[in-house]
Amino acid sequence: MKFNIALLAGDGIGPEVIDQAVKVSDAVAKKFGHEITWKPALTGAAAIDAVGEPYPDATHDVCVASDAVLFGAIGHPRFDNDPSAKVRPEQGLLKMRKKLGLFANVRPTFTFPSLIDKSPLKQERIEGTDLVFLRELTGGIYFGEKGRRDEGETAYDNCVYTREEVQRLAKKGFELAMTRSKKLCCVDKANVLETSRLWRETVQAMEKEYPEVEVSYEFVDAVAMRLVQWPNSYDVLITENLFGDILTDEASVISGSMGLMPSASMGSDIALFEPIHGSYPQATGLNIANPLATVLSAAMMFETAFNLPEEGAAIRDVVNKSLAEGVVTEDLANGGKAYGTKEVGDWLAANI
Amino acid sequence: MKFNIALLAGDGIGPEVIDQAVKVSDAVAKKFGHEITWKPALTGAAAIDAVGEPYPDATHDVCVASDAVLFGAIGHPRFDNDPSAKVRPEQGLLKMRKKLGLFANVRPTFTFPSLIDKSPLKQERIEGTDLVFLRELTGGIYFGEKGRRDEGETAYDNCVYTREEVQRLAKKGFELAMTRSKKLCCVDKANVLETSRLWRETVQAMEKEYPEVEVSYEFVDAVAMRLVQWPNSYDVLITENLFGDILTDEASVISGSMGLMPSASMGSDIALFEPIHGSYPQATGLNIANPLATVLSAAMMFETAFNLPEEGAAIRDVVNKSLAEGVVTEDLANGGKAYGTKEVGDWLAANI
Ligand SMILES: CC(C)[C@H](C(=O)O)[C@@H](O)C(=O)O
Ligand SMILES: CC(C)[C@H](C(=O)O)[C@@H](O)C(=O)O
Repeated sequence: MKFNIALLAGDGIGPEVIDQAVKVSDAVAKKFGHEITWKPALTGAAAIDAVGEPYPDATHDVCVASDAVLFGAIGHPRFDNDPSAKVRPEQGLLKMRKKLGLFANVRPTFTFPSLIDKSPLKQERIEGTDLVFLRELTGGIYFGEKGRRDEGETAYDNCVYTREEVQRLAKKGFELAMTRSKKLCCVDKANVLETSRLWRETVQAMEKEYPEVEVSYEFVDAVAMRLVQWPNSYDVLITENLFGDILTDEASVISGSMGLMPSASMGSDIALFEPIHGSYPQATGLNIANPLATVLSAAMMFETAFNLPEEGAAIRDVVNKSLAEGVVTEDLANGGKAYGTKEVGDWLAANI
Repeated sequence: MKFNIALLAGDGIGPEVIDQAVKVSDAVAKKFGHEITWKPALTGAAAIDAVGEPYPDATHDVCVASDAVLFGAIGHPRFDNDPSAKVRPEQGLLKMRKKLGLFANVRPTFTFPSLIDKSPLKQERIEGTDLVFLRELTGGIYFGEKGRRDEGETAYDNCVYTREEVQRLAKKGFELAMTRSKKLCCVDKANVLETSRLWRETVQAMEKEYPEVEVSYEFVDAVAMRLVQWPNSYDVLITENLFGDILTDEASVISGSMGLMPSASMGSDIALFEPIHGSYPQATGLNIANPLATVLSAAMMFETAFNLPEEGAAIRDVVNKSLAEGVVTEDLANGGKAYGTKEVGDWLAANI
């Protein structure tokens, strides 16, 4: 098969980790007889520097003309401490999600048995954890009207959801639950927020279409606790954009394998794959960033976007092998030999 | 001295744990020659059942006429799964916070050396953790305009902050930092939200008034991670209402001593003291709930509202003694003998 893949390296360590995912994907393509054409395009601070905006139309055109998008990371500290900056890298990310219609962000958290000692949690707490968040990605307070009034003295952000937005996300949640252990947790703050009450009543109304799925409803603050206490008690969780932002990051570190967690964002047509970790500016250019989350995002891409499970499995296998043989970056080296970002990528590609 | 204390037991285990705090407070008062008059009043589901609303005017009158408020817990599952309920216990809590002007919620997380093995985190991660959240409590999305349009198909919640609201909360944060290790972390989502940018710019502008305080700015998703990874790297954290709700609950479980964490809410005049834990409906009436968080909230009340540090210390001492001697409820019993809620309270009062 032939694929065009939009390649959005982005900022910070983005370009370095993306390079490794490209190498590994090419090796898989070669092995299975596929042909990938990579279509690099600008995003984030890199795009602001080059053309003045973080998600240029040219980049969007590349994405819609591709079969999938592989994405690195976005964000630069130069913008973070300047609350008055007019253009920000993150706006590019949000615009991209919106324009590509990527309303469902799939973020798994699972454990690698060989890395369980990396978890900040005690082994008995984390063991067996295998959960997936479905985070709504194109609505809520991220996209509602925001601004200032009273000469800048008052700021506001509007959180808005329609029933249809909740339904399409929840549908993906129910479907995912059906392929797993048939447990779905709807995370909201229905005791305070009207949008959460809409979420809860919409999901409640959908329960009868999926009689086999056992649905629970939990408040976001309670989930923030239980994720630390008993993460292995969860399976599929659905939630709105901002809660998803906070909880998926929290979940990603409990496994101790933050540098290994991939994610997918999907909507109607195109899907985007990216590591959960951010642009990690301090590590930029040092050849120390862990490329495995991006490599595993490429595995998700083969499986989900191209429906090629064997190719995905080949990537997962070689990642497991690198972990078993200690061909890892310093974050996983446990005082042993640490390989560079590039060296890990080379090893993975060579061992596919 | 003579004190009037409004006593709001609330729902679930509220009445049981409040009873123990009353006993212990009375014992301290007797020892130090004070006189407490308790003024019980209705809140929450209990108030809805009795008079149709969760924070009746009569209760408010009792609070404003008192020197402090001691509060149990609010919330009842009967309301949680009914998104269309018109009156909810939580509305009472929010109304109470607003009408009493309790804009600053102080939520410490610390460890008890004897309980460190209760933490879901590995010992080296949790050891030495001693942080305090200052959560803004009367603004943000909790109190902005909320409702439905499009015949109920669209829901919205407005998040609003004024500079003055940020300043008064941040001021308490800077002042608290000055009494501790002079480190302040402002938690926001300034890369996405306009209200967060107002928070960040307001705190930045205040830095020069407190040149000794080292201020850091972190995104809420990053803090959700680092709280699990290195909780002991934080000292004082300030944040807006909803982020505070999620993060303080997350923080409260990492110590393994959720059942021991007290909190205070203050504003201009009156202050309110309450355990961090909720109404724990499943345990209602079973005499198994841990009363220590409420008892320690009473200690905070003596220290903060009445400026009586010795009285507070007397309560803390007897709590430590109960832990050391194993006079604890089942959540802390470690397979040893578990005492009832009431028995723990009796023991504490007798040993003051
Ligand atoms: C960079 C930021 C805008 C983004 C978000 O909040 O969605 C990031 O934290 C994420 O989770 O992908
Ligand atoms: C009960 C609920 C409304 C409340 C809140 O969200 O503030 C509670 O979670 C808390 O943190 O005190």
